[in-house]
Amino acid sequence: MPNERIAEVKRVYNPRPVSMFFEDFRPGDETGTGSVIVTKEEILSFARQFDPQPFHVDEEAARQSPYGGLIASGWHTAALCMRLIVALLGTGSGSLGSPGVDELRWLKPVRPGDELSVRVEVLEAIPSRSKPDRGLVKLRYTMRNQNGEDVMTMIALGLVLRRPEVEPT
Amino acid sequence: MPNERIAEVKRVYNPRPVSMFFEDFRPGDETGTGSVIVTKEEILSFARQFDPQPFHVDEEAARQSPYGGLIASGWHTAALCMRLIVALLGTGSGSLGSPGVDELRWLKPVRPGDELSVRVEVLEAIPSRSKPDRGLVKLRYTMRNQNGEDVMTMIALGLVLRRPEVEPT
Repeated sequence: MPNERIAEVKRVYNPRPVSMFFEDFRPGDETGTGSVIVTKEEILSFARQFDPQPFHVDEEAARQSPYGGLIASGWHTAALCMRLIVALLGTGSGSLGSPGVDELRWLKPVRPGDELSVRVEVLEAIPSRSKPDRGLVKLRYTMRNQNGEDVMTMIALGLVLRRPEVEPT
Repeated sequence: MPNERIAEVKRVYNPRPVSMFFEDFRPGDETGTGSVIVTKEEILSFARQFDPQPFHVDEEAARQSPYGGLIASGWHTAALCMRLIVALLGTGSGSLGSPGVDELRWLKPVRPGDELSVRVEVLEAIPSRSKPDRGLVKLRYTMRNQNGEDVMTMIALGLVLRRPEVEPT
């Protein structure tokens, strides 16, 4: 149902400014994002700007490549993953940014029309020893397509503020 | 010299279709890319599309954040790194794409006006045991700003074709 899909994409792309803090990340927790459909135009546009390899920007060359057709830049896939994650966690969260990512793996090509969503597992939540107002969370992202195939995985690190203490009334 | 900078950016953004093959990656080799200047408009545009956290999309909120001003999404920085790498290695290369990245680290914020370039070191070049036409290369990318500060590092994996054998005449 194309209309439902569009509604879904709009929903996840307009997150409320909810607040997620360090205490909200409990090791073992799992959740999922909304989904996004990747268009050919977006694949071409991203790749022309950032990753103009033939199998990302040239339909004919892509057909003749081992991929057999146009595929998204892995960095485009990673950026879409971030978009879904931001929508899930909210833009009013206690996020202080990320020191990095471990073991990013591109497992399957992402092709025009693919619908992608992300499973999020909390692996670790480590309070900072030097800065008591924050902690480090380690999350595993597993991005899947509409066929349930894993297309990308990564272990993302995030610095997150602790929930502010409320003054007793 | 703004004009020289623009010329430089144009140069690295219009790579010739040179061909790099597995044999061209020798462990210990080091080289560098051209550079690119990041504009505020690009930072905002990328982040609105993929990473709309306040310190990437809202100048006033960014000023009040721990970063003290607008900073680029780490995924934008990574995409710009890819752009410089593609320009260096050429679009006619033997690249078969990448299985992933290890230890991506965002070390310093990237801010509007920063000029970024990448050092590339070949760490390993491993011939494939199952597919004799290709090999895996492991490269360390170190992205620096105009002050010589490292802003991002990663270990990138790449699948690359071996140089085609020429028939003896």
